[in-house]
Amino acid sequence: MLQDFQRKNDGMNKKERKDEIKSLRDALVARQQDIREAKLPVIVLLEGWDSAGKGYLINELISEMDPRFFSVATFARVSESEERYPFLKKFFDVLPENGKFLFMDTGWMEDCVGKYLRREITPEEYERRIESCNIFERQLRDNGYLVVKLFAHISQKEQLRRICELHENKNTEWRITGDDLWQNQEYDRFKKAYDRFMEATDKVWPWTVLDAESGTRARLDAFRAISKVVEKGLEKGRYVGKATDKKFPLLGGPSQKDADLTATISDEEYKAELKRLQDKLAKLHNKIYRKRIPVVLCYEGWDAAGKGGNIRRIAYPLDPRGFDVIPVASPTPGELARHYLWRFWTKLPRSGHVTIFDRTWYGRVMVERIEGFCSEDDWKRAYGEINEFEKELTDWGTVVLKFWIHIDPDTQLERFQARQNTPEKQWKITDEDWRNREKWPQYEEAVEDMLRQTSTEYAPWYIIESVDKKYARIRTLQIVTDALERAVKENVVRGMKCTWTNSKQTSKSSGKKK
Amino acid sequence: MLQDFQRKNDGMNKKERKDEIKSLRDALVARQQDIREAKLPVIVLLEGWDSAGKGYLINELISEMDPRFFSVATFARVSESEERYPFLKKFFDVLPENGKFLFMDTGWMEDCVGKYLRREITPEEYERRIESCNIFERQLRDNGYLVVKLFAHISQKEQLRRICELHENKNTEWRITGDDLWQNQEYDRFKKAYDRFMEATDKVWPWTVLDAESGTRARLDAFRAISKVVEKGLEKGRYVGKATDKKFPLLGGPSQKDADLTATISDEEYKAELKRLQDKLAKLHNKIYRKRIPVVLCYEGWDAAGKGGNIRRIAYPLDPRGFDVIPVASPTPGELARHYLWRFWTKLPRSGHVTIFDRTWYGRVMVERIEGFCSEDDWKRAYGEINEFEKELTDWGTVVLKFWIHIDPDTQLERFQARQNTPEKQWKITDEDWRNREKWPQYEEAVEDMLRQTSTEYAPWYIIESVDKKYARIRTLQIVTDALERAVKENVVRGMKCTWTNSKQTSKSSGKKK
Repeated sequence: MLQDFQRKNDGMNKKERKDEIKSLRDALVARQQDIREAKLPVIVLLEGWDSAGKGYLINELISEMDPRFFSVATFARVSESEERYPFLKKFFDVLPENGKFLFMDTGWMEDCVGKYLRREITPEEYERRIESCNIFERQLRDNGYLVVKLFAHISQKEQLRRICELHENKNTEWRITGDDLWQNQEYDRFKKAYDRFMEATDKVWPWTVLDAESGTRARLDAFRAISKVVEKGLEKGRYVGKATDKKFPLLGGPSQKDADLTATISDEEYKAELKRLQDKLAKLHNKIYRKRIPVVLCYEGWDAAGKGGNIRRIAYPLDPRGFDVIPVASPTPGELARHYLWRFWTKLPRSGHVTIFDRTWYGRVMVERIEGFCSEDDWKRAYGEINEFEKELTDWGTVVLKFWIHIDPDTQLERFQARQNTPEKQWKITDEDWRNREKWPQYEEAVEDMLRQTSTEYAPWYIIESVDKKYARIRTLQIVTDALERAVKENVVRGMKCTWTNSKQTSKSSGKKK
Repeated sequence: MLQDFQRKNDGMNKKERKDEIKSLRDALVARQQDIREAKLPVIVLLEGWDSAGKGYLINELISEMDPRFFSVATFARVSESEERYPFLKKFFDVLPENGKFLFMDTGWMEDCVGKYLRREITPEEYERRIESCNIFERQLRDNGYLVVKLFAHISQKEQLRRICELHENKNTEWRITGDDLWQNQEYDRFKKAYDRFMEATDKVWPWTVLDAESGTRARLDAFRAISKVVEKGLEKGRYVGKATDKKFPLLGGPSQKDADLTATISDEEYKAELKRLQDKLAKLHNKIYRKRIPVVLCYEGWDAAGKGGNIRRIAYPLDPRGFDVIPVASPTPGELARHYLWRFWTKLPRSGHVTIFDRTWYGRVMVERIEGFCSEDDWKRAYGEINEFEKELTDWGTVVLKFWIHIDPDTQLERFQARQNTPEKQWKITDEDWRNREKWPQYEEAVEDMLRQTSTEYAPWYIIESVDKKYARIRTLQIVTDALERAVKENVVRGMKCTWTNSKQTSKSSGKKK
């Protein structure tokens, strides 16, 4: 893309370009309202060379827009050692709401290429991230986002000229760091790497290279590219992706039918085991904190199955400075207006921390499926998207454990009645619980589908038999302590772990296929 | 408080204490629902010595609580040089919603005392912050919060014993840093400083010193203190504070009556001035970025007065990496359920950045007052609370400028009609705009009250005559560039600037009075 980039003679003079810019700018301002009404979220990603005038260009793009309907996110260089989250999290964090624009001053491309060339990540990790970017862009498309990808291009000579100009002006000299000079010296390596990245990520949303040696040309081409995506998006309406046929390393899942609900534990053994395992967990928490291993524990299960009490037994021995419990309720309007995984991405643990989700992203394939809160395509697609999400977490080194807290309908009925008859527990039981109970067969089916399609080698499901809640707690503690012990022993370097590669994809070409 | 602290013989044995803990814990769990229904937010602040077992104590307090209704915030030591916001922001950030508990593992006390003893802030700044803490606690109370303040106390000898114990265990030795040893060596200095801080902040919400040499005693006293505040809070119901009679350095405010709405500018002069001032602003933005001066620009004004276009002219020359425009609409449910300034505190600029608020916290004394969205006590109290808020910002070194974009009713009518008659502008005009227009006299009165009561020496109001929008833009640019030029010249050390001290308060006793 950059290798063969040539300034084209478009037969326009400066005045004509400026006129077209003005009319495209006015059209974009007017389109803001249509985008808002069509509830389309639009991401304009601007990548490019240092000193190519990216900041200035973004200001031109937004200069007439209504600030209520757009935001700007800038990603300065963060060195790998300072990052405590999977690399995509920072881009999920800023995702715009439906109907709004987001302009990004560099994004996932600079993040990947820059870290690779600075040797902050290994070549293998770099390849993996290219693939992750493709997955990210596809998920954005399938969930209704419009993405415009621009690259501001200048030559090595022009870059050096601008660096010198900035350096000679005492107001701006501080902006020039060794990093800028380094990029100019290593121009060819960067060019090759940018090219390679763009070619590997040109499928879902294509790149537009801007001739940034001329501000007017860059502006015109940027407005044209945005206009094209916006017009097409408005014409076609919000896109809803279908499920992909991508293969995941599935375990075939446990099944509710195999659960032995008679499993029980004596009070005496419970007390002894609870103390032993909680002490062990407290020590392990220290170790994972020091080794900076992130941990995600997912709780799903029937109403009244005993999730809350189970979570409390896990949380009790943990140092409060190192864990969070995230209760997941119905999404807020701001959450509903974004990628459905957004509210989970933004709450991930920092490396070394534990996050316990009390209900999770699996709501998509259970309550949202059954109640029709999303389309059939949406929930059918979600199994794969969730597997990709959890793979991103485990590749980062996260321990992901998923618990289905299981009881039978009779036990649920008993517990519902007990709640109803105990004044201080009545708030725990609502009409909705009774309504959900009537849908037991539908949920049972959805749970089976979920267990079969999302129990992966890297993020397995565990069915926790919880008719005897004490038994359930001990079993969960056992699974958690075992997994953390393994993780501590494996001593994986964070962000370097690749648990699984689709067998058809070699690491060389992984960015191109999908 | 610590000087005369003595372990009291309460005549109880361990078994009796444990029984009372159990019953208080159960009661607290049950009270969670009452707190939720009464929509009371509760903050439990736990301060104390290193190694006093604060983390463990918090785990005991929350062990039976429902995670949906509480959260835990921990404040590790952040050195002053790493902080880019006014020191209170991090505590505002975590404020709980109505009906929920927040447990804090150290908070504003450790933040102030620690930084003072480590010489990261001057003695004068320390005194100022003590006063800010008192203001913060009063604002919490006046806005319906319940606050429980606990201090976990151990002796120098016991602290040393625990440090050695942690150090000798290979699982925990990494927890002990030079900082812990330093506190133990400087125990007497810390004790004096803690004492002084607690005495200076004991009025609004009193402190409870916990005997943390015994885990059981500490737990019991903590549960008792929480129970006391919670029971009293539930009994009395949500508190609504009255306005204080605190004096602020008021300018007497500009008045709408003095505005010359005939002010105008020629097209030629406009073009020249716009270019000149925008170039100047671009350069100043570089300078304030380097000097790390935060800037807050507040826009209020009549509907259709031209706020949007004015903001765009200010934003255009700014580097997008260094500014944000925050459009302020009706509060979301999460925002409504917290201190009304919470949604602004959490969006403040980092030092060196510019935040432009398109409508502001002054909604409290305008639309909320006029539409009855808050009580009379609430909006009458708000003038003082807002002055305190802006003082906190300017003491931190922030440049705060407030613009009232002004037009007359006839001009508004013309612009409303023009919007109605221009298809691509129709979305800009709603029934609400027409309804607000009918309340022009009430708004006029509210604006006068606002200008009179909140135009302070440190955060003045400017009336911007905007019948000629171009005139208004140039005038705003002029005020902004002048103010930034002054700020750059003054070269104030961030967080050290004290623009105003209540004349009755000497810095020595500032923490005690109120």
